[in-house]
Amino acid sequence: MNATFELHPRLDADTTLICDLALSRVLLMRDARYPWLILVPRRANLRELHQLQDEDLGQVMQEIAWVSDRLSELTQAFKLNVAALGNQVPQLHIHIIARQQNDAAWPNPVWGIGDPLPYDDNELAVLCTALEGSLQGANT
Amino acid sequence: MNATFELHPRLDADTTLICDLALSRVLLMRDARYPWLILVPRRANLRELHQLQDEDLGQVMQEIAWVSDRLSELTQAFKLNVAALGNQVPQLHIHIIARQQNDAAWPNPVWGIGDPLPYDDNELAVLCTALEGSLQGANT
Repeated sequence: MNATFELHPRLDADTTLICDLALSRVLLMRDARYPWLILVPRRANLRELHQLQDEDLGQVMQEIAWVSDRLSELTQAFKLNVAALGNQVPQLHIHIIARQQNDAAWPNPVWGIGDPLPYDDNELAVLCTALEGSLQGANT
Repeated sequence: MNATFELHPRLDADTTLICDLALSRVLLMRDARYPWLILVPRRANLRELHQLQDEDLGQVMQEIAWVSDRLSELTQAFKLNVAALGNQVPQLHIHIIARQQNDAAWPNPVWGIGDPLPYDDNELAVLCTALEGSLQGANT
């Protein structure tokens, strides 16, 4: 069994690729209401964080912390929300969402609140470039 | 500045202590609808995962994985939900919730859905003992 990693079609459909870190793919959720990143460890057949091998577990945590720090800095977030849920999309993925006290769902979690707001093309391009630049230099 | 760790009063009020791991306090949320644990790293003045020092970050991830594995085994969970939100209670705390496909919120996240269902005293005592036993032997 040499299963290879493939991004779940639902994650692929809802997001734009930012970059690959050493272990995780970094995706931007296309919902202009919140700066919302998703990390997907590039390992096949993972559903739960605790299924990661020890070394990968440490690496994912480093990547979560790195992306959180960069996203927080870039957006001047009031609070970050970090979550691995996976009730609807079974492939292990970690949400990292920059929250503000005046955003569409505050102080609730973002899931299940209203409908995604599309980015306009220019806004999306600018944000992706800023994120890509900000995530360069990861020691991961 | 030698700030000491103190559990946030809201977390204290809503939970029952299970045990202390090397870094994190393990609490049970008193909501009988879901087996719902909360880890609180015993460090003062933390709000975000990425504020943890490198060593603590690795330790917290080990503890998240250990508690997730044990809770999953004990409850035969269909899925775990792991999240650090902190929009309402600013002290860094990590939810680890055992989900079933027939639980009160499935497939949505649990936050903001209905009201907590109290445990009866006997049920709570049995669950706390089982969790305490299950979490013994942590290599953390």
